[in-house]
Amino acid sequence: MTDAFSYVDSHRDHFLAELKEYLAIQSISTLSEKNDETRRAAEWTAEKLRAAGLSEVQIYPTPKHPIVYGAWLGAPGAPTVLIYGHYDVQPVDDPEKKWVSDPFTPEVRGENLYARGASDDKGQVYANIKAIEALMHANGGRLPVNVKFLIEGEEEIGSPNLDHFINANKDLLACDVAVISDTAILAPDQPSIVYALRGLTYLEIEVHGPDHDLHSGQFGGTVHNPLQALCEIIAALHNPDGSIAIEGFYDKVRPIDAAEREAMAKTPLSEETWRTQTGAPHSWGEPAYTLRERIGARPTLEVNGIWGGFTGEGSKTVLPAKATAKVSCRLVADQDPYEVEELIRAQVKKLTPPTVKSLVRGLNHGYPAIVPIDSAAVGAAVAAYRRGFGAEPVFLREGGSIPVVATFYKVLGVPVLLVGYGLPDDGAHGPNEKYNLTCLYNGIKTSAALLEEISKLTPEKLRL
Amino acid sequence: MTDAFSYVDSHRDHFLAELKEYLAIQSISTLSEKNDETRRAAEWTAEKLRAAGLSEVQIYPTPKHPIVYGAWLGAPGAPTVLIYGHYDVQPVDDPEKKWVSDPFTPEVRGENLYARGASDDKGQVYANIKAIEALMHANGGRLPVNVKFLIEGEEEIGSPNLDHFINANKDLLACDVAVISDTAILAPDQPSIVYALRGLTYLEIEVHGPDHDLHSGQFGGTVHNPLQALCEIIAALHNPDGSIAIEGFYDKVRPIDAAEREAMAKTPLSEETWRTQTGAPHSWGEPAYTLRERIGARPTLEVNGIWGGFTGEGSKTVLPAKATAKVSCRLVADQDPYEVEELIRAQVKKLTPPTVKSLVRGLNHGYPAIVPIDSAAVGAAVAAYRRGFGAEPVFLREGGSIPVVATFYKVLGVPVLLVGYGLPDDGAHGPNEKYNLTCLYNGIKTSAALLEEISKLTPEKLRL
Repeated sequence: MTDAFSYVDSHRDHFLAELKEYLAIQSISTLSEKNDETRRAAEWTAEKLRAAGLSEVQIYPTPKHPIVYGAWLGAPGAPTVLIYGHYDVQPVDDPEKKWVSDPFTPEVRGENLYARGASDDKGQVYANIKAIEALMHANGGRLPVNVKFLIEGEEEIGSPNLDHFINANKDLLACDVAVISDTAILAPDQPSIVYALRGLTYLEIEVHGPDHDLHSGQFGGTVHNPLQALCEIIAALHNPDGSIAIEGFYDKVRPIDAAEREAMAKTPLSEETWRTQTGAPHSWGEPAYTLRERIGARPTLEVNGIWGGFTGEGSKTVLPAKATAKVSCRLVADQDPYEVEELIRAQVKKLTPPTVKSLVRGLNHGYPAIVPIDSAAVGAAVAAYRRGFGAEPVFLREGGSIPVVATFYKVLGVPVLLVGYGLPDDGAHGPNEKYNLTCLYNGIKTSAALLEEISKLTPEKLRL
Repeated sequence: MTDAFSYVDSHRDHFLAELKEYLAIQSISTLSEKNDETRRAAEWTAEKLRAAGLSEVQIYPTPKHPIVYGAWLGAPGAPTVLIYGHYDVQPVDDPEKKWVSDPFTPEVRGENLYARGASDDKGQVYANIKAIEALMHANGGRLPVNVKFLIEGEEEIGSPNLDHFINANKDLLACDVAVISDTAILAPDQPSIVYALRGLTYLEIEVHGPDHDLHSGQFGGTVHNPLQALCEIIAALHNPDGSIAIEGFYDKVRPIDAAEREAMAKTPLSEETWRTQTGAPHSWGEPAYTLRERIGARPTLEVNGIWGGFTGEGSKTVLPAKATAKVSCRLVADQDPYEVEELIRAQVKKLTPPTVKSLVRGLNHGYPAIVPIDSAAVGAAVAAYRRGFGAEPVFLREGGSIPVVATFYKVLGVPVLLVGYGLPDDGAHGPNEKYNLTCLYNGIKTSAALLEEISKLTPEKLRL
């Protein structure tokens, strides 16, 4: 392992330059006009897998963005590790010019590399690829375990084709443990392991009033303004205490038990830290739960976007025909994302007065997941972090959603390790997304160490 | 007058072709990138005033869009009539491609001419100019009264420079009566005279939460989402019965007396007609007032636009840093638009919880107005409509706002006649704005007849 680690240290500049290439590709999966760029990111990923020493590298087409696969299966009898990540990135809408440098012209400032996708998830995918390269170099072209890579291009749009691909390729993807690097650790000197993820129900609510835009002076006062009606519906989806006012919403929510509350209390998120990270004036949410619990262990309902009427410069006295909102719920075990969509649909229907019409359109869905923290697989991850970052990792719940975790469990029947190298303030999905360079280099080391740690276990032990 | 009327009838095709030229100019005053087009509309207006026979035609610059002035003062002792209109138009935002023909490529379909500004207000300005041409032609180059035109280019953005211009040019604009053609009649065979207008307070409400966009999974549940907070504030600005929930908002509202209610009941707006005109599923608003009263005699609060977060294709799980709404109030006598802004500001402040910050930005203001319906000036308008449209006009309150009415009263000390030629379903401010061709031709006739009717009165009688 010393050899692999020194390979990493001596190739820092090279790795940085190469990652910048990756980040310059505008693989925004939600924008169809970027399809060529997204395709280019898939090809770049495949090429680097090949260069790292994997064989069987293939780009599998899907109805939208391709899936990149690569494997090295030269260690018969040793465990097989499936490594998942995604090469697509979020959009960069920047009406207020908040990006300090261009999102697709990666730039190092201080300890960080700034670019869209730097942390979510290209930087972490890249760390896993370079770990293979370092191990191959250190071990004469061999790895201590069998390895399969599955890197998709549709994570940011809800992975519409991934489940189908996994179900149709169970043999190709057969493994003993899956590893996902798409989460954050607490700090460069405080690694952490995420053992629970929230699920997702993402939908649009549309409110229709008149069948064409009206002059507010000619009809104002007699028409239920769709923007106002939408605001009334959205306002009614929360109770004054911050809890969600949808009938049945909490029915399947698994309560946090005393032991877990105690464990979560070990990594408290203070109001002060929260304010530094968010810049918001005061925290909000269910008063019976700590900030950490609200983020990781409780479901939420967020408005992700609203639009309607005149939004240009100056004033236009229009009474618009319709109004639309994008709304999403983060779900926890054991909520079902499709059931939640139906609950929201029923509630919106109930909240819609006869003066307007409403429509709920489901966009995507992901199941929540919890990973067993006392398994041998998690033990290997703990050891790997200890070696890669030189510090003992703590256990965390994570507020985000990685729906594939539930699929790996269900379809491949293996434990899933969330071994992430991002940081909480990386700005994933927002402006000035960054990746900490210490996290990059120690991430490569941790990823290499993880494969070595896993090689000490039998496939049977891993799967327990 | 027979001569003037036959001049109109024999020039229909010519007038239509010329008006199309006017409507093809994209004089959208709120968009600074259209400044050249707006300037071109001013020049076109000036040229047609000159061609109609006015002298002293001048384009006066303002800090934004110029004011066009023209006069014919060859009837000493006869009354002087000031005719006001505007050559600027509303934007055409058409994300859903609702315009059947291009808004700036005027097209006749059936009885109507379709184009942005066709009814509001270029078509009506044009009718007034052509009335001068017809009278000049019929009377050997003379008019029965003195005439001044004041055509501005900033009406659709709240006339920010008009009050200053009027105050600074009292002598230039001195007159005995003012005429504005920027309102609708009930139907081509049912002319009507608007005797009351609503005022306007237009503002933006901005809600700020975190200082940058966040990942909804990483912070959702602890941050008061600014879009949600904005919805909560907006929802709380109305009571469940449709009345406005702003403290003090109704304090200065002049009640509708029994006589006026009776008069308004003579031109009822039925639920059925309302539905045909709006296409909305069911009417809304203060139950104690009829639809006609809600539109004309009661103040309103409308959301004209909202935006924030991700509004593109697909799903992005962003928790946005801010949310903005454009909100406007239609005011009735004796509300003060600046006072109303302060009332809204205070209410929004009261509704803003400590978890977010809010900001109210005033955009523009107009005073409500009521015109005395038993005056000699209104009598002249009644006679003119009777002759131009061949039917007896009825009296109406109008829901819209023409702030200059209050200024003419206050600064020039003259009665203001609202002699409009639009129709209620012209789609002013919306897609497929149109102008009825009967209204165009009969409008020119009415405008000519009005000047002749006014010539029968002395300046003293007019001003009473």
